[in-house]
Amino acid sequence: MAGEIEARLKALDLVLPETRAALGSYVPFLHLGSQLFISGQLPLVEGKVAVQGKLGAELDIGQGQQAARLCALNILTQAKAALRDLDRIVQLLRLNGFVNAAPGFADHPKVLNGASDLMVEILGNKGLHTRIAVGCASLPLNAAVEVDAIFAVD
Amino acid sequence: MAGEIEARLKALDLVLPETRAALGSYVPFLHLGSQLFISGQLPLVEGKVAVQGKLGAELDIGQGQQAARLCALNILTQAKAALRDLDRIVQLLRLNGFVNAAPGFADHPKVLNGASDLMVEILGNKGLHTRIAVGCASLPLNAAVEVDAIFAVD
Amino acid sequence: MAGEIEARLKALDLVLPETRAALGSYVPFLHLGSQLFISGQLPLVEGKVAVQGKLGAELDIGQGQQAARLCALNILTQAKAALRDLDRIVQLLRLNGFVNAAPGFADHPKVLNGASDLMVEILGNKGLHTRIAVGCASLPLNAAVEVDAIFAVD
Repeated sequence: MAGEIEARLKALDLVLPETRAALGSYVPFLHLGSQLFISGQLPLVEGKVAVQGKLGAELDIGQGQQAARLCALNILTQAKAALRDLDRIVQLLRLNGFVNAAPGFADHPKVLNGASDLMVEILGNKGLHTRIAVGCASLPLNAAVEVDAIFAVD
Repeated sequence: MAGEIEARLKALDLVLPETRAALGSYVPFLHLGSQLFISGQLPLVEGKVAVQGKLGAELDIGQGQQAARLCALNILTQAKAALRDLDRIVQLLRLNGFVNAAPGFADHPKVLNGASDLMVEILGNKGLHTRIAVGCASLPLNAAVEVDAIFAVD
Repeated sequence: MAGEIEARLKALDLVLPETRAALGSYVPFLHLGSQLFISGQLPLVEGKVAVQGKLGAELDIGQGQQAARLCALNILTQAKAALRDLDRIVQLLRLNGFVNAAPGFADHPKVLNGASDLMVEILGNKGLHTRIAVGCASLPLNAAVEVDAIFAVD
């Protein structure tokens, strides 16, 4: 029997990306006790960074939001790999959002709403989270956005 | 009967800012079990970013410290909204400090002491915290500083 | 009787650096319940930042990895100061890695493997962790890397 969150993913016609190996000697998730830590996720599609470059330079807000949304999907992929069943999520506690941005950029919150909105769309009230949004001079593989997460789980 | 922390705020002649809506589809705080997560706070005064710009460029250390102090006051505003009673704080576990800074800037710790000192001033030993201090090429609304927090609470 | 982790440090011919005072009004570690928070650590050797500058500019990957490795050693120094016995570490939950980098830099994961590899080398499976890796336009004291940590401890 498919879980509630899986059903919502299906209703939204969303498919979680495949899991990919970490880019180093770390692990993509750690579940210990009531907290699930997810490593920083890039906007990967089929293992490649789908949105590269800087906000406030070659990328517009819409492209940044799409990148943030892809990061969020990859976070859920890792959460599913950790928990098997996404219904075990009690609450998304925190998203840390890092935007690859030119020095004058100021719209990080709009960009990261691409991730935040998706979490609420999929997880409902359990997807309401605290957040940071900051600008980075550079990100791994020139990704436009990196987002990591902490979940409360049962 | 006013709490101990409230009394200290009064003695220090400090007034917590009003709470403001989040700049996106997230929440300003989440209290689950023994931890309280606070979203990244900007140096807001009456809903406007009071200190904008870059350290190491148009802003000096004193202005940066004032910005960090305002972030800390906004963190306490959110903590109060979450807990009702600030005496429920057991310990400030972590401040993550992000300084909007020019590439050559190196005095992030001095800037963030504006937030750290205030926390100790108000919360006493319960305000002693771990911290990170890093430089960002840009921050939301061109804020000079962003600080988020994790509290242990009862 | 020396602990298991201490024995591995000795076998690897590694000596933990001395603890140093925090660069501000915060504390280097906080142990509350089952989690140990470590403040952001710089690549200190005898109290001085041993690797300064930017990746993608004056520093190469190898120098960045050495900086990250030094940050990791300083994290373990703080963990030992907090716990007395490093065998009390149950799991390294998270490393947050901040790389001082030029705007075009994209190899943050390689740099931070200097910290991640060391943790696994010393702590074994307990050193496998989640991670973020982002680029900063500036860091305290012009350090090449800053890394903070959260441990699960008993």
